[in-house]
Amino acid sequence: MTRGTFTIAGGGPVGSLLAIVLARHGYRVGLYEGRPDSRMTNIYQGRSINIALSDRGWHSLQQIGVGPDAKDQAIPMYRRAIHDVDGALSEIPYGKEDQAIWSVSRGGINQQLLDIAEDEPDVETFFEHRLVDVDFETAAALFRLGDTEVTVEADYLFGADGASSKVRRLAHDLPRFSYSQNYMPQSYIELNIPANADGSHRLEKNALHIWPRKDFMLIALPNPDGTFTCTLFMNHSGDPSFESLRERDAVERFFGDNFGDAMDHLEDPVDTFMAKTASPLFLVQVFPWSFNNKVGLIGDAAHAIVPFYGQGMNCGFEDCAELNRLIAQHDHDWTKIFPAYENARKPNGDAIAELSKRNFVEMSDLSGDKRFQLQKKIEAKFHDAHPELWTPLYSMVTFSPEVPYAEALRVGDEQKAVMDRIMQLPDIENTWNEQHVMDRLHELAAARFGDRQ
Amino acid sequence: MTRGTFTIAGGGPVGSLLAIVLARHGYRVGLYEGRPDSRMTNIYQGRSINIALSDRGWHSLQQIGVGPDAKDQAIPMYRRAIHDVDGALSEIPYGKEDQAIWSVSRGGINQQLLDIAEDEPDVETFFEHRLVDVDFETAAALFRLGDTEVTVEADYLFGADGASSKVRRLAHDLPRFSYSQNYMPQSYIELNIPANADGSHRLEKNALHIWPRKDFMLIALPNPDGTFTCTLFMNHSGDPSFESLRERDAVERFFGDNFGDAMDHLEDPVDTFMAKTASPLFLVQVFPWSFNNKVGLIGDAAHAIVPFYGQGMNCGFEDCAELNRLIAQHDHDWTKIFPAYENARKPNGDAIAELSKRNFVEMSDLSGDKRFQLQKKIEAKFHDAHPELWTPLYSMVTFSPEVPYAEALRVGDEQKAVMDRIMQLPDIENTWNEQHVMDRLHELAAARFGDRQ
Repeated sequence: MTRGTFTIAGGGPVGSLLAIVLARHGYRVGLYEGRPDSRMTNIYQGRSINIALSDRGWHSLQQIGVGPDAKDQAIPMYRRAIHDVDGALSEIPYGKEDQAIWSVSRGGINQQLLDIAEDEPDVETFFEHRLVDVDFETAAALFRLGDTEVTVEADYLFGADGASSKVRRLAHDLPRFSYSQNYMPQSYIELNIPANADGSHRLEKNALHIWPRKDFMLIALPNPDGTFTCTLFMNHSGDPSFESLRERDAVERFFGDNFGDAMDHLEDPVDTFMAKTASPLFLVQVFPWSFNNKVGLIGDAAHAIVPFYGQGMNCGFEDCAELNRLIAQHDHDWTKIFPAYENARKPNGDAIAELSKRNFVEMSDLSGDKRFQLQKKIEAKFHDAHPELWTPLYSMVTFSPEVPYAEALRVGDEQKAVMDRIMQLPDIENTWNEQHVMDRLHELAAARFGDRQ
Repeated sequence: MTRGTFTIAGGGPVGSLLAIVLARHGYRVGLYEGRPDSRMTNIYQGRSINIALSDRGWHSLQQIGVGPDAKDQAIPMYRRAIHDVDGALSEIPYGKEDQAIWSVSRGGINQQLLDIAEDEPDVETFFEHRLVDVDFETAAALFRLGDTEVTVEADYLFGADGASSKVRRLAHDLPRFSYSQNYMPQSYIELNIPANADGSHRLEKNALHIWPRKDFMLIALPNPDGTFTCTLFMNHSGDPSFESLRERDAVERFFGDNFGDAMDHLEDPVDTFMAKTASPLFLVQVFPWSFNNKVGLIGDAAHAIVPFYGQGMNCGFEDCAELNRLIAQHDHDWTKIFPAYENARKPNGDAIAELSKRNFVEMSDLSGDKRFQLQKKIEAKFHDAHPELWTPLYSMVTFSPEVPYAEALRVGDEQKAVMDRIMQLPDIENTWNEQHVMDRLHELAAARFGDRQ
């Protein structure tokens, strides 16, 4: 006996995980992906694309009951490795000693989750099925497979079809659909650092490398095969920008002046820069996330964010874990599950959108800022002494799955007001380690956060 | 000799005023409106639709050199007339004794501005021309007139085609176009209060009437013919809402319970409520407002807002006045005018969007709130005593055209922080008129605003 039938548009990590959730609750699921099966044809063309996964992601997988296999192939990054313009290296840990964010292969985790989904007898996967249309009243969907069109009927449909979601675009014309798409001033291109001949990493493996240059930055995340995937973020227009850097001479100078120490490692950065068109960065926020209690949005389709907090996939996995919880709580009543799902997740999607936008400034500017590093040190010290009063914002977002994003954003803003006052203490650069600084911070923090214990 | 040619899509008040601005700077203008000429066929079907015009609007018209004719037919509203649920009336002035917002007939001002535009030899008007397409590279436009299509070439094009702007919708697919459309929880319907037999007004003429009921409200604006145009704002869904009030009995009870004193005047409110479909309220924010230095957006097409601050047309007129200034300043160099225009106006468009959204709460809830009325009184008293230190937010937005909306929003937020502290003074309800309250307010205000004199 089946509880009902679902169509899922989009077979990425979130769509695959959602298929597992639904199947384990007794639903029959058709999982439709527009691209070919990446397990058969390497659509990544040998290139490693990695994304960050952290405690929220692992925690959600665990709640859903999907084992930590993925972690075996992930690389923990315990710290930011900050490359000065003169090549000097400094480090800022992400959290406590054993806390890390994880570089995972997007293709790898997708394939693992697809395998697990296909192990469920009630999940059937379909590749190269491009979504053409959705009936938001009946949840019927029309897909194109080569030259033929296939109509798929089901009780419900989820759009898990990513940042440029077709389901979401089809929903535009529904009444009272609020929508925003905002471009960041920055665009990006990907570069590569190859492995050493023996397959080892050419830079420290267990760190996220950042070359913070204020208006632009280069970052590098390690892959298991010894390579690093690098991303250059820079303004679309202005100076310097992807628009202004057109001449080879200027590009060579730009790389040499700004990323001197990386030039020993990067694979043809100037050629790559000249050949590639920079990709835009945008955020999409919509509401509602469900329509007629028949069709829902999940993952990037509901909340496309920018990558600066490394939370995109984590947030999508949390969506799945929330649905997992709500299906049980509301005993399969989707007239209750859809509204409860969007009301629970929308504020958190908005919060991580805001946090990820702000984090460009933190990564590209403040990471290289001595006062910022000092502030981090003071916060870390206070957190160690009074974990009940203070968890740094980064740690709340990254290492505290029990704190919703919206709560992290709110508390983080209050903490910022407190730290602004601490950083104004006279001669804080030299006195930060003295007891009176901790005392003052305790006083301010206890006044704001003390009654929440 | 002509400076160049412009197509304007949209012959409403803003499009007509823009045509005047451009013609007076030496451009040839084709002004295209999709609807019939309202001066020939009464498209308003005898119904009065009024909108609020205030100092920013008058000031902009003056700067452009369009006389105050419109003011002759406008009705000044010096105060809010607040109708309690038990029928008791109270009043809150909008500003100083002689300060008013003005109820003007939308059709009337449109027709006046069209007449003035047509008096310019270089303006030609075209009605019943529906915009079909725009070439954002060349500023060419395609219009449909009946069964035929007309291509219009010009050097530049402006979309002045309102909240649902076709020009803006066509711009969606341009690269890096940021867009947001947000629905308010409220929708609205219009109702009518007829004139007395002798043509006089049945309620006080020189006031904006408000029946604030927290989650919903009724308002009424006077027309010169003795009628009032009323608008009922209420949630789309929930209780009470346009969705929940479906039965005639319930609607009758709703009006009787909430608007008892208005029921003597309203023309068939229950029938009208039952017959009408409520219209949604939405805000649109976009960026950029210009494309390739060839095509621009202006008025509601660039910034559709909600009506709760009565600033929509004022903001559009300010757009025109800004262009008027910039054309002279940049000596007809549109590669400078377009960027300067959007950079100057975008922050103000965003600010009035935010202010107008917030003002629903002020109008529907706080207007009936004794503490809010007290706060207004304290602010007004302090403004009288120290106009250099304090102008209430409402007055900055409505009566201070020299203060940009963005500045008003920022200063207003700071004032709110100060007033929150004043309103927490012990027994403020009874002591508000004592000197120590003014002294404390002066102390707080001088600390924040004193150095700005």
